[in-house]
Amino acid sequence: MPMILAANANAQGSHVGEWRHPDAWDRPAANLANAVRLAQIAEGGGFDLLFLADGNGVRNMDKPDLFAATSPSDRPGIFEPVTLLAALAMATSRIGLVATTTTTYDEPFHVARRFASLDHISGGRAGWNLVTTSNPGDALNFSHEAHVPRDDRYERAFEFAAVVKGLWDSWADDAFPQDKASGRFLDPARVHALNHHGKHFQVAGPLNAPRPPQGQPVVFSAGQSETGRELSAAMADCVFAIEGTLPRAQALYADLKGRLAKHGRTPDSLKILSGVTIIAGETAEEARRMSDELDALVPDAVALDYLNKMTGLKFKLSMLDQPFPDLDTSEIGPTAIAQAIVARARGEGMTIRQASRAILPQMAGNLFVGSATEVADRMEEWYRGHGCDGFMIAAPVVPTGLERFIRLVVPELRRRGLVRTEYEGTTLRDHLGLPRPANRFFPA
Amino acid sequence: MPMILAANANAQGSHVGEWRHPDAWDRPAANLANAVRLAQIAEGGGFDLLFLADGNGVRNMDKPDLFAATSPSDRPGIFEPVTLLAALAMATSRIGLVATTTTTYDEPFHVARRFASLDHISGGRAGWNLVTTSNPGDALNFSHEAHVPRDDRYERAFEFAAVVKGLWDSWADDAFPQDKASGRFLDPARVHALNHHGKHFQVAGPLNAPRPPQGQPVVFSAGQSETGRELSAAMADCVFAIEGTLPRAQALYADLKGRLAKHGRTPDSLKILSGVTIIAGETAEEARRMSDELDALVPDAVALDYLNKMTGLKFKLSMLDQPFPDLDTSEIGPTAIAQAIVARARGEGMTIRQASRAILPQMAGNLFVGSATEVADRMEEWYRGHGCDGFMIAAPVVPTGLERFIRLVVPELRRRGLVRTEYEGTTLRDHLGLPRPANRFFPA
Repeated sequence: MPMILAANANAQGSHVGEWRHPDAWDRPAANLANAVRLAQIAEGGGFDLLFLADGNGVRNMDKPDLFAATSPSDRPGIFEPVTLLAALAMATSRIGLVATTTTTYDEPFHVARRFASLDHISGGRAGWNLVTTSNPGDALNFSHEAHVPRDDRYERAFEFAAVVKGLWDSWADDAFPQDKASGRFLDPARVHALNHHGKHFQVAGPLNAPRPPQGQPVVFSAGQSETGRELSAAMADCVFAIEGTLPRAQALYADLKGRLAKHGRTPDSLKILSGVTIIAGETAEEARRMSDELDALVPDAVALDYLNKMTGLKFKLSMLDQPFPDLDTSEIGPTAIAQAIVARARGEGMTIRQASRAILPQMAGNLFVGSATEVADRMEEWYRGHGCDGFMIAAPVVPTGLERFIRLVVPELRRRGLVRTEYEGTTLRDHLGLPRPANRFFPA
Repeated sequence: MPMILAANANAQGSHVGEWRHPDAWDRPAANLANAVRLAQIAEGGGFDLLFLADGNGVRNMDKPDLFAATSPSDRPGIFEPVTLLAALAMATSRIGLVATTTTTYDEPFHVARRFASLDHISGGRAGWNLVTTSNPGDALNFSHEAHVPRDDRYERAFEFAAVVKGLWDSWADDAFPQDKASGRFLDPARVHALNHHGKHFQVAGPLNAPRPPQGQPVVFSAGQSETGRELSAAMADCVFAIEGTLPRAQALYADLKGRLAKHGRTPDSLKILSGVTIIAGETAEEARRMSDELDALVPDAVALDYLNKMTGLKFKLSMLDQPFPDLDTSEIGPTAIAQAIVARARGEGMTIRQASRAILPQMAGNLFVGSATEVADRMEEWYRGHGCDGFMIAAPVVPTGLERFIRLVVPELRRRGLVRTEYEGTTLRDHLGLPRPANRFFPA
């Protein structure tokens, strides 16, 4: 099975500063033309899928400076992802289309229906990324007084996923003869009403859509807690995880694959994608210069907020040019990272501004910066070392970062036989090496 | 203002028998290619909008004969409408795109978001048809034990619509400067958090999408009860109603327009579309022959079910060839229609089958059958007579019925100056003569 390449696609980008870069597309908020071109670029590069993160709320409104210099992850001006992917399905023909939807603030019948629709519209290219919603503020948009506690969210997510999967199998593949001569539109013996009665949901079914072309659209999950991992092992076809080092990625990989047997699953049935930000250059030096350029575009308010978040401190914008203060250990956040940041800032005699800038590369999560060979080496190491089955790639800036990855790194990966040279199937399941499952209610 | 033409578009058709017609597209269930071609045909004919009805459940599963010979309105194999319209937006450029969504089993934040997305994707062509859901069975797909009572549904619908409209105005039109030089992505002074606290919903806002191109996507409503009419007068831009006679249509028209003043609205601000099934022929005879052909395609189980529904009787399929029985008035449903059907069947010595066939034309609602001139005459009479501002047209069979309407009737309507000869604007509001509203939170 070749290495999976997924494009972490937000037409506003993934790096906080990238939208400001001269190469970045102008006016990225809810810009359809950008989204279409990005999808076509990824498809042109042979990517297996396009992935859209999502949330149902706008963050940081209480911090005007930060809010004004908002980042795409704060999501003030985005499309609803399933609606967008339905449009992108019409502008592409092969690439998989994966959208994020919350199980905490939506209904399984709606979610099953929307992804079944997307799968029919795209000819079998739909994927559902199941999240329980991490941003507490989203609760306030759905008549909740506060965020649903984590355990309740996950309990609900398990049941939600089971209902969605059951609904997708409502109809046998041959349930709709649509025979004009006899007037038999459907076969009443080939439908299954779910009649689910659970703790969180009662859903009669059947779904009012034929079985999706893939049988079951591909289910993604990303939670890394114990419960999150159990949910992935029980319910997901694909996991998206961000780990900063290869040993941590290997540990997660072994843990997730090891959980599958007790669910009667083979290790191959769950694909693990490692999230990475890639800045590839013609040379290593060019790549590093691009990375610095990007960090320089992060507004002060954002960099300072990140420094405060990582250290547990409360610096203000007015203090940026003051020397980093001499602090008692007890005033600093308890993490080793916080202690290390402060020690370095003091040790090198940084100002607060300099300290906030020095840690920006960490903000990108797992960052691969380098020449095509260097980047391909890292990817190969993680892939062959059982750190992942492939990568969820963010490549700032939009679109030139992705174009550069495709021009420089993809040929190198192909040369090494790590990725396929062209699409071999038509559905997302085909691309990922996941067989089309039998209908649980109408086996064979 | 010209007469509005809306295509009541379901790629499976609107007449129960039409999918069986030789001219009808094969395999209509969840068929994207059909939906795309139908949208393009309607746009080619200059229609103002494409309208998708919807429901969240499959009916008649307890009646296998009826279920097998299902009709499109029983909705076993359809697309989720917003997802479909996002795809159709990419295959069209001018026609308005209106989808139905329930206020009883969904969340205002989700609905506001999806239609804002569709409006951005389509460049200002989105419309939301608000329904409270009439099919009681849908409740069982959303963890309800029974359908929500009508008064509660409408109370919720009023609040739901107010929240959706408020969310669409979350951002001023100039809220996203996206200025690369200053790093100012948005203007914190140009966003409004709704902070809605009502009986049914608490929604903080803001919506995580820029203001839609139309400011407010066009809101449709169809309820004809007293409460339904009040909802339309308070909240809708457009009403879809089916009335079987012109005097009834005129009464509704006068009533609805008369309710607007107390909401500070002008009569022009609410458009009324009359639902009609049109079968147009080269000659009146051809049209009538086509109508009979269609009725002949209605399966026995469906025709009998309709007879039972209209009369309150309980005939079985095995009784079809028996003479229509001599019944006591008390055994028949209390409506005048029921009494008239029975009197006619007995008077003309019909079998039960013949009686079930004789009433089929009523099933189409308001039916215009005839030559181009005859159909145009009826339409002109209704329009000039203040029975409606335009028509929601179902034209069996798909697609030849719509093509025939466009080829035969539209030129006649143009000749009479009743409809425009080409699109004059780009948004659905432009087509309907509805101005783009100011933002309620950021006036001018």
